[in-house]
Amino acid sequence: MRIAVIGSGAVGSFYGARLGRAGHDVRFLMRRDYEAVRRNGLTVRSCDGDFRFPAKVFARSEEIGPVDLVICALKTTALDAAPGLIRPCLGPDTEVLALMNGLGVEDRFAQWFGAERVFGGLAFVCINRGEPGVVNHYGYGRVAIGHFRDDAARARRIAALFAEAGFETSVPPSLLQARWEKLVWNIPFSTLAVSAGGVPTSRIMADEGLRGLARLLMTEVIAAGNADGCHIEEEPLIRKMFEDTATMGDYRPSMLIDYVEKKPLEVESILGEPVRRALRLGVPVPHVDMQYRLVCFLDRLNRGEASG
Amino acid sequence: MRIAVIGSGAVGSFYGARLGRAGHDVRFLMRRDYEAVRRNGLTVRSCDGDFRFPAKVFARSEEIGPVDLVICALKTTALDAAPGLIRPCLGPDTEVLALMNGLGVEDRFAQWFGAERVFGGLAFVCINRGEPGVVNHYGYGRVAIGHFRDDAARARRIAALFAEAGFETSVPPSLLQARWEKLVWNIPFSTLAVSAGGVPTSRIMADEGLRGLARLLMTEVIAAGNADGCHIEEEPLIRKMFEDTATMGDYRPSMLIDYVEKKPLEVESILGEPVRRALRLGVPVPHVDMQYRLVCFLDRLNRGEASG
Repeated sequence: MRIAVIGSGAVGSFYGARLGRAGHDVRFLMRRDYEAVRRNGLTVRSCDGDFRFPAKVFARSEEIGPVDLVICALKTTALDAAPGLIRPCLGPDTEVLALMNGLGVEDRFAQWFGAERVFGGLAFVCINRGEPGVVNHYGYGRVAIGHFRDDAARARRIAALFAEAGFETSVPPSLLQARWEKLVWNIPFSTLAVSAGGVPTSRIMADEGLRGLARLLMTEVIAAGNADGCHIEEEPLIRKMFEDTATMGDYRPSMLIDYVEKKPLEVESILGEPVRRALRLGVPVPHVDMQYRLVCFLDRLNRGEASG
Repeated sequence: MRIAVIGSGAVGSFYGARLGRAGHDVRFLMRRDYEAVRRNGLTVRSCDGDFRFPAKVFARSEEIGPVDLVICALKTTALDAAPGLIRPCLGPDTEVLALMNGLGVEDRFAQWFGAERVFGGLAFVCINRGEPGVVNHYGYGRVAIGHFRDDAARARRIAALFAEAGFETSVPPSLLQARWEKLVWNIPFSTLAVSAGGVPTSRIMADEGLRGLARLLMTEVIAAGNADGCHIEEEPLIRKMFEDTATMGDYRPSMLIDYVEKKPLEVESILGEPVRRALRLGVPVPHVDMQYRLVCFLDRLNRGEASG
């Protein structure tokens, strides 16, 4: 199968390299790492075993041309660039997988490309970029795939590609619910890691006040998700989130890494869109809203953009 | 009149020196600045005119002995030390003025020293400490004085001392309401200055999200204060707070200065006690509570005390 990977940061490079190693014709759109990968291929330093993949890299989507599947792994801060980057890779039957964070991405994709061909992917993986052409993989890798309209048969065909590449996969009954459930982790832990002074998740877990705040944030996210049509059971999910996080040690969420590296944070897809949906649905989310305001400000302050 | 100043930071030194210059026998308990002031007196660099005051300094309260009025200007983080430092200065008729920040200080003083002799003072002043023995006064100076049980005649006699020393003074009808009203400024501006990344008030004013958050915090503080027996008119006070803050420029609240200098923050009197009162009174204060949790954590992280 011919696959285009648009947005070749850690997520795009890692999953693309594994799909390529599994035999697919994977074509990477790259910017920062273009020269390095053209010369030396992609290097994956992985807890599952290191490997090097002689990736086909391209500087423009037009050179990639139409493919069977587009995997879009852009940061959501670059979402507005997606249509221009993806369209040259679309044929009449091309499917588009948004392997991205937060809420609202598939809705935009459906507007741009038509709902039927849009899928969403959730990556549960600890990775980051190393020097140009290198991805570090520290653990996990599971992928959940859903079709925009929850066509399970079609989602299973995409999930099978990842399964063949060695990943644990799942097709949740509702993509929207899977997105909200991931936010039940991301909103407390990714965003408190930033607003509580730039700390790993272990610090949040060790502080009684912040742990209580994490729970309040989770409760609000679940209420908003359920008002948005999900059926999330509150206590079991909160318990699972705390249990999972307790095993992660000094984990630094990608939002914290972006913050430390002074990159734009995925504030809108992880906080802004959930807050706006909750307000539309009449669900009070005071803690999430406050977190949104603080992290928005900290993000701009951090990049020297805050006014005053 | 013989006056003891307990806690000779910026506030105690400044008001004590002005009362001394007005002719009172003022005795300062000092630690950090003891040697410098013994040698060179207190220097006040003031927008109202610089002056040097040959202050009487003491290292132990026992050397001061009983006085007519104790002015306690300790940081509330040192509140537990107050009884031991103040008792040696008490005679049967000694009055005690808590010139300190936040909520709950006079209640503790009333338990320790008896309610009848306890007064509270609110200083509206921009000052900080310079090198040992020096206080910098940038503006304002107004003092509001109240008796713990709102005995206006007695409060007016204390206020008159400050008026004779050249300060604008007032005796609010309710000390408790004056405390809550000051929190309507301190909670949004002093504490957001810390949690929004260490910024002056101008940055909070310039950011739409934070300004909205400041308003939400004010609304909750007013609701809690009114449930606590005050009669605060919400909109006029909020408008006044924003108008006053707009004139302050790049003002750095004392909590921010403490934060930058890695000193303990007055979190409990400015956030903790208001939150606990609101909860006891059944008033929801989610934004104030979240701010309390964040600032508590940031305070300990800043001083290397956060666990994990």
